[in-house]
Amino acid sequence: MPAVELPFTPSEYARRLGKVRRAMAERGLDVLFVEDPSNMAWITGYDGWSFYVHQGVIVFHDADPVWWGRGQDANGAVRTVWMERTSIAGYADNYVQSTVRHPMQDLAAILRDRGYAGKRIGLELENYYFSAKAYLVLRQELPNAELVDATALVNWQRGVKSEEEIAFMRKAARISEKIVDGIVERVEPGRPKNEVVAEIYADAIRGVGDAWGDYAAIVPLLPSGTDAAAPHLTWDDRRFRTGEATFFEIAGCYRRYHTPFCRTVFLGKPPQHILDAEKALVEGLEAGLDAARPGRPAGDVARALFGALERAGIHKDSRCGYPIGISYPPDWGERTISFRKEEETILEAGMTFHFMPGLWMEDWGLEITESILIRETGAAECFCDRPRKLVVKD
Amino acid sequence: MPAVELPFTPSEYARRLGKVRRAMAERGLDVLFVEDPSNMAWITGYDGWSFYVHQGVIVFHDADPVWWGRGQDANGAVRTVWMERTSIAGYADNYVQSTVRHPMQDLAAILRDRGYAGKRIGLELENYYFSAKAYLVLRQELPNAELVDATALVNWQRGVKSEEEIAFMRKAARISEKIVDGIVERVEPGRPKNEVVAEIYADAIRGVGDAWGDYAAIVPLLPSGTDAAAPHLTWDDRRFRTGEATFFEIAGCYRRYHTPFCRTVFLGKPPQHILDAEKALVEGLEAGLDAARPGRPAGDVARALFGALERAGIHKDSRCGYPIGISYPPDWGERTISFRKEEETILEAGMTFHFMPGLWMEDWGLEITESILIRETGAAECFCDRPRKLVVKD
Repeated sequence: MPAVELPFTPSEYARRLGKVRRAMAERGLDVLFVEDPSNMAWITGYDGWSFYVHQGVIVFHDADPVWWGRGQDANGAVRTVWMERTSIAGYADNYVQSTVRHPMQDLAAILRDRGYAGKRIGLELENYYFSAKAYLVLRQELPNAELVDATALVNWQRGVKSEEEIAFMRKAARISEKIVDGIVERVEPGRPKNEVVAEIYADAIRGVGDAWGDYAAIVPLLPSGTDAAAPHLTWDDRRFRTGEATFFEIAGCYRRYHTPFCRTVFLGKPPQHILDAEKALVEGLEAGLDAARPGRPAGDVARALFGALERAGIHKDSRCGYPIGISYPPDWGERTISFRKEEETILEAGMTFHFMPGLWMEDWGLEITESILIRETGAAECFCDRPRKLVVKD
Repeated sequence: MPAVELPFTPSEYARRLGKVRRAMAERGLDVLFVEDPSNMAWITGYDGWSFYVHQGVIVFHDADPVWWGRGQDANGAVRTVWMERTSIAGYADNYVQSTVRHPMQDLAAILRDRGYAGKRIGLELENYYFSAKAYLVLRQELPNAELVDATALVNWQRGVKSEEEIAFMRKAARISEKIVDGIVERVEPGRPKNEVVAEIYADAIRGVGDAWGDYAAIVPLLPSGTDAAAPHLTWDDRRFRTGEATFFEIAGCYRRYHTPFCRTVFLGKPPQHILDAEKALVEGLEAGLDAARPGRPAGDVARALFGALERAGIHKDSRCGYPIGISYPPDWGERTISFRKEEETILEAGMTFHFMPGLWMEDWGLEITESILIRETGAAECFCDRPRKLVVKD
């Protein structure tokens, strides 16, 4: 077996497995099947663009996790996971894109063989890549099992980052800074958007220093002017224009760890109402960072932001942040906690968030965001170090 | 409503809708819900990186399709779909990442209001992004509906490409060529892989001429040496090495249409057995292209390839191609037809495939592929125009 260069230490993987097993025990789960590639990677180190076919990690209380997936991807598992070869199970290719077979029949056989046919099996029912059909096949193959919704069970364990993970996010942050520096330099009236995106990608993948860049879980998003109301449009070759604001949503990514970092660029002389909004937003950001302390509910961050905006005469009430860390497409959030007023989850040191104060009006949008780390004492730390302002190029 | 610049003509979208409705009628479906973003885009023109939350297109027999999704993404629909504003339905943000609400409750309400509570509803049970939970919520909300597996119903309608689509794929092919030219130029012993990937991305997104580059549904894959056995590993900063073959799997993408195009680069002097394999593979490719004609079963292409390889003493028997066209992450195949011996689907002019003859041995891999178009007469046409050979840099 080729030597595996794990991104994290054995004790880190043991820490993670322990957390997952404790959470399983709390839920009375005998075994857990994880198909979300972010959760697979977090638990085992598995890495590869193979999540377009069924695959997963089976977590046991009393044995090493098993990586399960397509045969050719088992070769990828052999090169990336911490477990031994005996804990890697590949299914035959005739299960792929078949109308007569489904990979979950193979998984069911493994669970049966291991004695789980009549047990409580946790499944990520609302998570990427675990399809309706996958569930129905398991249901049919394991009629005596209790299939329990374990959506986000692993995601919640990922919330407090270890020092090793924080170190990866610091590397990602250097890449985020580089990307934003490049944007600020290159955006000009008349330049086609795709040319700027080409350079964003080049900067992102080249990385910074010894931190080579990984692909981000979301492509660069850069809506301009009135399109800022449709924040998930991707690019084309339309040119940047004087008098328009463009909001750039990017993330440096180091070994699957993301530090999203957004800035808005205005070409020309911004109208006063946008400058007023900038001032309010920056005050709101600072108020939010100050509220982002261990022991306080996550909702405090949103309340602090909204309070500062209210004082500037702006009423805003929507979700303004989410946890970040390791991720695969199609999303880089952890899908657990939100920065919104009603969020009661208590912040802990080591949690990391993308704090996204933004204002969207009918024909313009302004977003200035920070990826943040909750620290033991004091206000949250920002991973990236660039001025917190609307970028104006006049 | 902002002017929508549809990628295709109204008659093209009418053609597509007609095909889907006929297929629905054949299956006795009263209504169809489509969550695969590729199918959503093909039917309506919808485009955006929003498939990380639930969204979809509802196809009716007697009314325009309805785009359904998150409120902020309805703003994206307004800018990209051919239907009127009254056919765009957004759900409130408090359905997103909620433990007490699920977006499918909102969809169920729409279906109920429109009279489908007791009807036959087609669902893409085995397709990306339609989760187990989504199915279970619909099941619960619509207890009198018959939920029918309509996986790939739309995918099958996409098989024969219109002239408009073929024109997009020709633009994508120019981008594929540019990417491969850049690879051939830049790969050298000692160069870190991520640097070459950075340039691949830059070439891909800059595009060629008036064809700006879109993001591909799969990131560049470039396993070297023994890693070729693990074809879905992504890159890091390890350097290319003399004496190793690296297989590059890339695709130019124009407005979501892909023409994958793979070449293998050998640094140094290739051993004779690899040159022998190259010769056999090229003969196999040519034999396959010659068999790829309308009226013949798709399995003929595989048989032709394997026959040529057998004559060179190489036994191979696996899937060696799949249909291509429009796609979103995580995959660029259409997941309908395969080039494998047992495939009986009859080829038709206008079908497009990624023909992927490849040889993987224990410590090396060789792949030389073509994206092909089945023509009215004669052998298949290759979209890309570059030498069909192992690239040797000595």
